[in-house]
Amino acid sequence: MVETPRRREIEDVASVLFREHGYSGTSVRDIARALDIRGASLYAHVASKQDVLWSIIDRMASRFEIAAADALAAASTPGAGPGERLMALVRAHVGVVADDVGRATVFVHEWRSVTGERHDQIVERRDRYEERFRAVIAEGVATGTFAPIDPEVAAAFTLTALNGIVAWYQPAGRIGPTDLADLYADLALHAVLATDGRREVPAGWREVPA
Amino acid sequence: MVETPRRREIEDVASVLFREHGYSGTSVRDIARALDIRGASLYAHVASKQDVLWSIIDRMASRFEIAAADALAAASTPGAGPGERLMALVRAHVGVVADDVGRATVFVHEWRSVTGERHDQIVERRDRYEERFRAVIAEGVATGTFAPIDPEVAAAFTLTALNGIVAWYQPAGRIGPTDLADLYADLALHAVLATDGRREVPAGWREVPA
Repeated sequence: MVETPRRREIEDVASVLFREHGYSGTSVRDIARALDIRGASLYAHVASKQDVLWSIIDRMASRFEIAAADALAAASTPGAGPGERLMALVRAHVGVVADDVGRATVFVHEWRSVTGERHDQIVERRDRYEERFRAVIAEGVATGTFAPIDPEVAAAFTLTALNGIVAWYQPAGRIGPTDLADLYADLALHAVLATDGRREVPAGWREVPA
Repeated sequence: MVETPRRREIEDVASVLFREHGYSGTSVRDIARALDIRGASLYAHVASKQDVLWSIIDRMASRFEIAAADALAAASTPGAGPGERLMALVRAHVGVVADDVGRATVFVHEWRSVTGERHDQIVERRDRYEERFRAVIAEGVATGTFAPIDPEVAAAFTLTALNGIVAWYQPAGRIGPTDLADLYADLALHAVLATDGRREVPAGWREVPA
């Protein structure tokens, strides 16, 4: 797919419509109407609605992948451990979401709408991406930095919380993207961090009266 | 709306279709076809597709509300604090999701598709529900049981992780509903729990070499 200004504009408009009405609830005619052109003219730039969706999903997936790879590389210096790596992964993910909440929303809600071989490809890329989180958490469990939790469950807990940002975050609100990344890194780290007596939780956990 | 076996069957079938294809991507004809009846016959039982959606959303919202109210009541005995209350809310929410992942998926993905006054009603009920989490977290911050975190952000983090269960959980898989509730309660509690030096996180947090 060749990136042209017109093509980019089509994706921008489609992202807004997919976010608002869902992929199923948006037609090529809706996209054309929002651009104030005829459907036939739109097909000069895109092969299908599925083609536009794929561009959006593929581009967002690449952004998540690059951000995670960069974050892990930066947090793999001597002295940095799984805690730093988990926080780096969380900050990277939050950064991508907060930078373009519209497209991130389409990514989170509509990646399942990608069809055919591309669907298999995106499932595989998603698994590889989640595996980075699972591996860092498993490493932290193995070294005792993290509590002896289930890495698969903890990774799912963490990643769904990160993707859930699209459900509530207002970039123009009181919390800026960097603060959001710090707050989420703090919550995600402590969710898994080893603390004294963590083994008793949750079965026998009771608060110590002040 | 009168609950009849036929009506319940329609909602069951619609839940499956809404989950698979989305509300926008499902027609009344699709629902009728799945029931092997004609569209006209379906209208003897339901007023519209919106009416079926509302039944599903309203029923699930009530289940979440009742479960949360019961959980808070049970965790408000003398000696129980915000930690117990947060864990009770988390377990209650996980219980409702895990008990009917199909309808929970429709609830999480499609509550925004409810229209008119009912949309306002569901937004208000959702806000009241989230407020229970925010209040318990704010209480824990005030008493020092929890770290001095932002209750709104922590509640959003927690609730989106809980709703994210619909994205990955397989009830017939290796983790049963009760274990899932325990694991999530553990993660959600520690995400907010006060620990020594938590104030330094995330700005200056570094792992202590073993």
